[in-house]
Amino acid sequence: MRLHEPSIQDSSVRGVRLLELRHVEDALRGDLTVLEFDESLPFQPRRCFWTHGIPDRAVRGEHAHRECSQVLIPVHGVFTLRVDDGCRREEWCLDRPHRGLLVPPGIWLEAEAHAPDAVLLALASHTYDPEDYIRDYTEFLRMMGGCPRSP
Amino acid sequence: MRLHEPSIQDSSVRGVRLLELRHVEDALRGDLTVLEFDESLPFQPRRCFWTHGIPDRAVRGEHAHRECSQVLIPVHGVFTLRVDDGCRREEWCLDRPHRGLLVPPGIWLEAEAHAPDAVLLALASHTYDPEDYIRDYTEFLRMMGGCPRSP
Repeated sequence: MRLHEPSIQDSSVRGVRLLELRHVEDALRGDLTVLEFDESLPFQPRRCFWTHGIPDRAVRGEHAHRECSQVLIPVHGVFTLRVDDGCRREEWCLDRPHRGLLVPPGIWLEAEAHAPDAVLLALASHTYDPEDYIRDYTEFLRMMGGCPRSP
Repeated sequence: MRLHEPSIQDSSVRGVRLLELRHVEDALRGDLTVLEFDESLPFQPRRCFWTHGIPDRAVRGEHAHRECSQVLIPVHGVFTLRVDDGCRREEWCLDRPHRGLLVPPGIWLEAEAHAPDAVLLALASHTYDPEDYIRDYTEFLRMMGGCPRSP
């Protein structure tokens, strides 16, 4: 049995972080990943959702949130997340059930290249509110105001 | 696209309920299941965990909680949950990612017969506390006091 403690890795996209979650590997009993909200998240989740059976050519997400923060975890299978703060963009291939991507509000998010068995678990800081979604990329870019200039 | 609204089914084991969760079936974009905590749970989760890669002969759980409530969901694959209030016992084969079992404190719980690809997601009302676990079944039965007698 092997216990792995949690850790955090920064990204170049504003506020996006890769969370390595506490997990136990046990060849006899199977593996377990734990997320203690107080300890590991900058918000208290009020909602969660999971996507499954996503066709491999489908793109999910394609929006940003005004207020809602999320953590997105591949609890089974593999998918790719694209995160974009209006200035910098990154792609993350998420393929471990103990690694999640923390996405603050004001980040354009797309999920794609889902393996047939992929399950994306999201924990969200807010209940569902259609007014919280920015679904137009041009509007998103205008709100973000482009890249900060060097002084 | 088809939207299914949430519902609740009682069981014969004290306080255990099957939650049918809100979910959207979409052949083009894939399926999504949502759990709004305020709306569908009698507690605010403070922790979640998921088990994966469980050998098919392994039995997980084998404890009751003193205070902690949980909801247990097969976000991928299939497993069986055995719930026992010290008087009545039931087995639930959980095989749909939009059905979860709500398990209050004071219920002996065992998970077994995991398919190789099964992922059990648990949302828990309390942070991890080893003192909250009752791991001895005889002690559990003594605490529960057996079946209530007919008047």
